[in-house]
Amino acid sequence: MNKIVIDILGGDNAPNAQLEGAILAAARNTDLHFILIGDESIIKPRVEEAGIIRRCEIIHTTENISCDEAPTVVRTKTNSSIALGMEALRKRDDAAAFVSSGSTGAVLAGAVMRVGRIPGVSRPALCPLLPTKKPGVKTMVVDVGANVDCRPEHLLHFAIMGSEFMRARGVENPRVALVNVGVEDKKGNELTAATFELLKQTDLNFVGNMECKDAFSGDYDVLICDGFVGNVLLKTAEGSMKMLMTMMREKMTSNFITKMGALLVKKKLKELKAELSDEEVGGSVFIGAKKPIVKAHGSSNAIAFSNAILVAARAVELDINTRIEAAIARNSLGNTGE
Amino acid sequence: MNKIVIDILGGDNAPNAQLEGAILAAARNTDLHFILIGDESIIKPRVEEAGIIRRCEIIHTTENISCDEAPTVVRTKTNSSIALGMEALRKRDDAAAFVSSGSTGAVLAGAVMRVGRIPGVSRPALCPLLPTKKPGVKTMVVDVGANVDCRPEHLLHFAIMGSEFMRARGVENPRVALVNVGVEDKKGNELTAATFELLKQTDLNFVGNMECKDAFSGDYDVLICDGFVGNVLLKTAEGSMKMLMTMMREKMTSNFITKMGALLVKKKLKELKAELSDEEVGGSVFIGAKKPIVKAHGSSNAIAFSNAILVAARAVELDINTRIEAAIARNSLGNTGE
Repeated sequence: MNKIVIDILGGDNAPNAQLEGAILAAARNTDLHFILIGDESIIKPRVEEAGIIRRCEIIHTTENISCDEAPTVVRTKTNSSIALGMEALRKRDDAAAFVSSGSTGAVLAGAVMRVGRIPGVSRPALCPLLPTKKPGVKTMVVDVGANVDCRPEHLLHFAIMGSEFMRARGVENPRVALVNVGVEDKKGNELTAATFELLKQTDLNFVGNMECKDAFSGDYDVLICDGFVGNVLLKTAEGSMKMLMTMMREKMTSNFITKMGALLVKKKLKELKAELSDEEVGGSVFIGAKKPIVKAHGSSNAIAFSNAILVAARAVELDINTRIEAAIARNSLGNTGE
Repeated sequence: MNKIVIDILGGDNAPNAQLEGAILAAARNTDLHFILIGDESIIKPRVEEAGIIRRCEIIHTTENISCDEAPTVVRTKTNSSIALGMEALRKRDDAAAFVSSGSTGAVLAGAVMRVGRIPGVSRPALCPLLPTKKPGVKTMVVDVGANVDCRPEHLLHFAIMGSEFMRARGVENPRVALVNVGVEDKKGNELTAATFELLKQTDLNFVGNMECKDAFSGDYDVLICDGFVGNVLLKTAEGSMKMLMTMMREKMTSNFITKMGALLVKKKLKELKAELSDEEVGGSVFIGAKKPIVKAHGSSNAIAFSNAILVAARAVELDINTRIEAAIARNSLGNTGE
């Protein structure tokens, strides 16, 4: 039976948000079974109370890797929740996926060192889903920081993995675009120019270059870029929208009339904030590792964390990794069109 | 006498916005003299009517370079407004700076080919000012697209140029940060790692790496990155804030109560939109060319264009290019600390 391995110690709101998230996910999908990694004395009574103890296995530890530590400590802190989780993925057939709100670096390092890659994948990638203008439409960015120096064949693999992932999410023929400084075919730097030529030769629905002002248009399903650029894209969106929200709040509370107005629109703006938050999406998937790994936001609350768990469960259920392996083989360099 | 060379043909709202912008700038700074490039039959009556004809020289042409044309046509379309403008900068001592809302690519290509660089500068860069959370504080990004493939010494020069520019704008000891995927010293890709080491050795106020979620904090005066990354930063901010504004408008007009609320806050939100627009900033400076060049937004209205003209005038007045040349010499590689 497939089990989702869950890090209960990582994250700003751990262990409560993580535990509540697991309990919530168990309620939302009654087929799920978990391996919970954390303090047994805290976990056990809570899952007992929630009535899901028969669906939970607990691996006890109290050692966490903080975000301030070098990611490579995952190698030496073998009793940390992340290291134990990766070890479970590596050794146990029933450990099907891993979810953590802990140190992104440690999760990535652990995945690469202990779990390994899907055969044929040159570099796994960290892939969040962006909100867009179109209700219900999300756009995946591959990569946002796992690989800050990339070659064209890495970006080719990102495109294939992202496309398969979105297909598994129900997008019929995912539109793949290359993040660039303009939409014309010849635009860009050395990396994008070479990547463009590779992407043209695949069986993907490659729609060409995209300028970042259109990243939130909902016209694309997968955006391809190196991890440095993707990180800039993701964090700039976060920073600029926060700035706008802050300035808006200041404007709306600047006098009596605007305060009245703010009261009337408050509920709707809260709705908007929720739609744009990470809560709904759950977390970034680390695609390309031998087993699905989902990195939930460090600040995840219980709802966000439960969504991250469900993303991992769905990746297992849809057998995304087998699909990716086949797509990579189909589109690998020197083997195009096969 | 110094004259600002102005392209009256380039831009979505040309020639009206450009002409009105020039007339407005002339009113705001009565010392300014212009060389206006465009259709004399349109320009002459307007500047006569505005009473500034004695401060204007007109170079007649009706040939424009559109944004759809390859930037290099600036070489062959010698009678285009951009080519004529660059030629004036190159040949005439009294032609002190150039302002255009036309094709960015053609302006950059023309500047590099016809005007040349400040001695010591390896690569000129396109540098807009970003809005920030702090009222009145703007942050300059160097570069946002003139150089999509960069070496560390290019970024070093970007830092020096940006710092001098902000100093000229009145910032006492400009805080220079390197755009990166994290704030720790060792973060980043090969380019940023090598650039970090170079920046440490300068006499600049280098404050280290910056993550893009803080790009709008107002805690930095100059952000350094290659033109590809800078373009992603700039366009992502534009795209994400537009998405947020659109979604907010939809939420605010979704029912009677929110519509009432929207009415009450409308004026303040308009204020906010103006604060965030390019209007106030005027345009991106192309720093590093032998004479100051300001690229106004293609969609500039008269106010935005007049601000772009005033930015160019100020760069001339403050003799920014001489300052940059001295700073480059002071901080050049192998000559550190001199």
